[in-house]
Amino acid sequence: MEKPVIYLDNNATTCPTAASLEKMREALSVSYGNAGSVHLVGNEAHRLLEEARGAVGLSVGIRRPQDGHVIFTSGGTEANNLAIFGSVRAKERSGGTVLVSDGEHPSVDECARALEAEGYRVVRVPTVGGALDLEFIEKICDSSVILASFMLVNNETGALYNVKAAADIVRRASPRAFIHSDCVQAYLKTPFTLKSLGVDALSVSAHKIHAPKGAGALIVSAAVIRAKWLVALTLGGGQESGFRSGTENIPAIAAMGEAAREGYGAFRERAEHISRLRELLDDRLPREIRVNKPVKGLDGTVNMTLPNIKSETMLNFLSGEGICISAGSACSARAKGVSRALTAFGLSDLEADCSVRVSLSNMNTENDVLRLVDSLAAALERLARIK
Amino acid sequence: MEKPVIYLDNNATTCPTAASLEKMREALSVSYGNAGSVHLVGNEAHRLLEEARGAVGLSVGIRRPQDGHVIFTSGGTEANNLAIFGSVRAKERSGGTVLVSDGEHPSVDECARALEAEGYRVVRVPTVGGALDLEFIEKICDSSVILASFMLVNNETGALYNVKAAADIVRRASPRAFIHSDCVQAYLKTPFTLKSLGVDALSVSAHKIHAPKGAGALIVSAAVIRAKWLVALTLGGGQESGFRSGTENIPAIAAMGEAAREGYGAFRERAEHISRLRELLDDRLPREIRVNKPVKGLDGTVNMTLPNIKSETMLNFLSGEGICISAGSACSARAKGVSRALTAFGLSDLEADCSVRVSLSNMNTENDVLRLVDSLAAALERLARIK
Repeated sequence: MEKPVIYLDNNATTCPTAASLEKMREALSVSYGNAGSVHLVGNEAHRLLEEARGAVGLSVGIRRPQDGHVIFTSGGTEANNLAIFGSVRAKERSGGTVLVSDGEHPSVDECARALEAEGYRVVRVPTVGGALDLEFIEKICDSSVILASFMLVNNETGALYNVKAAADIVRRASPRAFIHSDCVQAYLKTPFTLKSLGVDALSVSAHKIHAPKGAGALIVSAAVIRAKWLVALTLGGGQESGFRSGTENIPAIAAMGEAAREGYGAFRERAEHISRLRELLDDRLPREIRVNKPVKGLDGTVNMTLPNIKSETMLNFLSGEGICISAGSACSARAKGVSRALTAFGLSDLEADCSVRVSLSNMNTENDVLRLVDSLAAALERLARIK
Repeated sequence: MEKPVIYLDNNATTCPTAASLEKMREALSVSYGNAGSVHLVGNEAHRLLEEARGAVGLSVGIRRPQDGHVIFTSGGTEANNLAIFGSVRAKERSGGTVLVSDGEHPSVDECARALEAEGYRVVRVPTVGGALDLEFIEKICDSSVILASFMLVNNETGALYNVKAAADIVRRASPRAFIHSDCVQAYLKTPFTLKSLGVDALSVSAHKIHAPKGAGALIVSAAVIRAKWLVALTLGGGQESGFRSGTENIPAIAAMGEAAREGYGAFRERAEHISRLRELLDDRLPREIRVNKPVKGLDGTVNMTLPNIKSETMLNFLSGEGICISAGSACSARAKGVSRALTAFGLSDLEADCSVRVSLSNMNTENDVLRLVDSLAAALERLARIK
């Protein structure tokens, strides 16, 4: 890699902070023990685990046990799977309605699809323009709803869904429903708690908040624990209060705790920085490129449709310039097919195929944005267009 | 921690090697990308992922695609869960016989228990003295067997089970059975391949081979892939050839690959070193302490019964001396109850309650062993005995 790399794909993954790496190093040296071991090296690991649990909890408004509980997982995908399958299996029901938005990440959508194959009725709530269709939810909702899962921020468009309003409608129509929100893309970018969203559980991930990969968490309310509304999917030694077995990944978890602490403290500062970068980008972006702006969204995600240039062509060009952006969700970028989330947003297949995503973080600079717009302008002149 | 720590709990977890940490650092800096992203940072991550897949594959005899396939997971527990539930779900059967040994790790045994609750007939093969009862298997086995899972090395006693003989009996009686071996404690300590064990799948873990926590793998035969004998449990972006969704934990996976490469290369040297330490330990161990020696076992694991001294009392004493050993399996040490694996071995409840486990690695020295035996001798004089 000769040119300095400009990384503008922060919704796919982020660069770990120095402090989170330092915390990880601690967990890899003196505290490398198994948190289940009751000797001094194990105790050190256990201390790091609980310290991280406190920090992650605090970052989503958990100050006391009655505010909720943090279940560490291997990442956001596992947290989403645990919420969906874990809640459905807990209720031992063989039917019912499951609500999800039509913009969900595959880690929610594929679970919904599997439930559909098992005989559940799955209803996908439209999100045209990046807004949950609340009237649709109002109409469809009745006491047959056993599970609802709505993401807070869409990974491809940055759309901020009105999860609170949707959850309230579901709760009124079906008090027994388990309500979950995939908050992976929202975490430390927009404030939320279980209470502010009105949900029973929410998912977060470490590697989207400048911590290394390998950890995530499902945050559940105290009521979920009390009423046993969730069962474990991964069985074994009974770690994570029995909700997730397997030796705890202390290095990744400790680093996640540190990144959560940092991100929570620097919340406003980071948001302001990203807003400034976004203003600059909006201002300088070549006019031929159309931004797919959601009704309400986060500044850090800029989804744009190119004038008849395939996203793949643009990505290759930019990658050659040392600039990293994404086409659709990187979580499945090596897979084929047009992004479902973009067509849900309202784009045609062709438009979706010509769309790219820039995702900013607090580590980006004005220079990064200027380099991007310059390269985009150069690409518009040089790259072949679809006829 | 004032005294230098002597870590003799290597079956619970191991200290990462310098080379594996260095590889991890690489994956945390320039290669921090999402392996699913098709730009230069993503490509770097993808390269590390495939390099690790090659190294882990090679360490279990996979040189070409037809030799088998490596599915990375978050660890050994997830690999065991994937083998058991993934194979049973793939066959869409609502009944049949499941065979496991009575010495399995909870990550296998709890899965068997869950299948039992679903209506499967689960038979636990006795392992008294640390040997699989092959005659029992011969008697019990018929074409109703859909799954068999036998660990290769027991985590508490170091017993080496005759998996090959057991697998052959199962295969003859029920050709359609899925045969799995939990090789977590055997990995890089005794040689094996899918073929040498006669199994369809086997599990390994990173943090037992001096790599950091957060990665493991299920190794499956080419036939399993071809015949679709396994389905994913964690759904989403379709990573790991669709068998395990979730952003790949590249830092942990890359480090695992490096540790596998190292351990494979230093196999004989490490085994010889551990054998020498074991001889020294056997030679110097106070006579009052009885070693629970399996019929056939690995030198690195020494399970011993103390003369009427509770394991907890001894552990606390040794921890105060800076010496880390374990009582039973550390994977569930914070849980209560007598170790099932030890009673399966033939120990009474009281003996199991007075048993501790020393587990050696190539990082231990003669001095570690001498310090341990001195402290054990001192403990025998000072500690209270059960009357």
